[in-house]
Amino acid sequence: MNDALPGPRESFPVSNRNRLRRKHERGRHDRTTVYQIMDAAMVCHIAYVIDGQPYCTPTAFWREGDHVYWHGSSASRMLRAEAQGIPVCLTVTHMDAIVLARCGFNHSINYRAVMAFGHAHKIEEREAKLRAMDSFIDRFFPGRSKVLRTPTEQEIKATTILGMEMEEASGKIRDLDVHDEEEDYAVPAWTALIPVRTVIDAAVECPRQHPDASREAGGMGAYQPGRQLDELMTEMYRQEYPEG
Amino acid sequence: MNDALPGPRESFPVSNRNRLRRKHERGRHDRTTVYQIMDAAMVCHIAYVIDGQPYCTPTAFWREGDHVYWHGSSASRMLRAEAQGIPVCLTVTHMDAIVLARCGFNHSINYRAVMAFGHAHKIEEREAKLRAMDSFIDRFFPGRSKVLRTPTEQEIKATTILGMEMEEASGKIRDLDVHDEEEDYAVPAWTALIPVRTVIDAAVECPRQHPDASREAGGMGAYQPGRQLDELMTEMYRQEYPEG
Repeated sequence: MNDALPGPRESFPVSNRNRLRRKHERGRHDRTTVYQIMDAAMVCHIAYVIDGQPYCTPTAFWREGDHVYWHGSSASRMLRAEAQGIPVCLTVTHMDAIVLARCGFNHSINYRAVMAFGHAHKIEEREAKLRAMDSFIDRFFPGRSKVLRTPTEQEIKATTILGMEMEEASGKIRDLDVHDEEEDYAVPAWTALIPVRTVIDAAVECPRQHPDASREAGGMGAYQPGRQLDELMTEMYRQEYPEG
Repeated sequence: MNDALPGPRESFPVSNRNRLRRKHERGRHDRTTVYQIMDAAMVCHIAYVIDGQPYCTPTAFWREGDHVYWHGSSASRMLRAEAQGIPVCLTVTHMDAIVLARCGFNHSINYRAVMAFGHAHKIEEREAKLRAMDSFIDRFFPGRSKVLRTPTEQEIKATTILGMEMEEASGKIRDLDVHDEEEDYAVPAWTALIPVRTVIDAAVECPRQHPDASREAGGMGAYQPGRQLDELMTEMYRQEYPEG
């Protein structure tokens, strides 16, 4: 599973595409940071171009080494275009806080984000595709693919799995407190940092739950109400990909 | 402020760009739905193309009628490119639930999303720009611009405000419960719908809070711990734009 992993956790190459031009003190090109931000997410946004028109589509994704994967319907316009090897930018964003200040200019958002660049390709080979379909489940719910009904031929045909080698990537982290110019502290505007978190609530069980269904199988025991989604995603990732 | 609002809440025109090809039963082109999804968000993702390469950038945004606005540094590569009137796709996504099933194929995510298409333009005229800078604050914190220190000439120069008329837009809502093929209910996999929410936590006040600072000014009183961000954003929006 981890054979795509590069040995040392060196940095991604820096080009015109992923060089951080602004606020470069927030930027990171090292794989450790880029991976951490990606592995804490379930959903990304993918930008791609069809006939000169950019599109931005949210989709679930997962990572194996320097490769990212996503899937969709074989009938989807996005996936049919992407399968042709078009350039793609895959962006992962976590919003962490709203940061108020005493002037508009110093208002901000704390966040963690990654932009990854590459060319999408379709996973055509049958065994690789079946493996990827399982990984897509197991990355979020470790071991769950084993307790599910296996995919039918029709489902396999109807599903397109796309992969992309991250040719370049950059991470950006803003994690700063309220900060104002010294003279602005005299302005009587109420200021604070307001943390933002994405959490899960109590699971609403299927009313037709099978009596032998075990909540422990497939890592579902970790999905407890109040848990922060980014922490849960990271935990599930490490369970399924212990080598990173 | 609301003079850009179209009279009747009719639907956006449907073209090749925003026609919903897949799962069209989830699709909406009416302004009411598109606006509701957008106004519940603080952050969007913007796709744009520079030299054939797509980029996908997260950024805060706001809406006035059929126009959306975002801002950034005048030195930013994205904003400099976008200011030239390039085509843009602005996407807003809310993740609402993880939906488990008894086969991989029926696993899903409940979400609300909008894709809006148009051409970005720079707000050049000084008064319009100052108004937009205030709106950017007041949309999230109604009336807050009045309690802040006014922008300096340097800040005005350093800020670029971009606007885009939504030429076309489409909303997509998936709000479905666990569903399996009848024969799959015999599979003993634990299934449930797991709600996902983005919430704010207790504000961490600036240690240098001004003694006269009022939490009620600028709508900050609404920012109470545990509140759901999408509901809060909708509430703040309606307060600032009572006509929609």
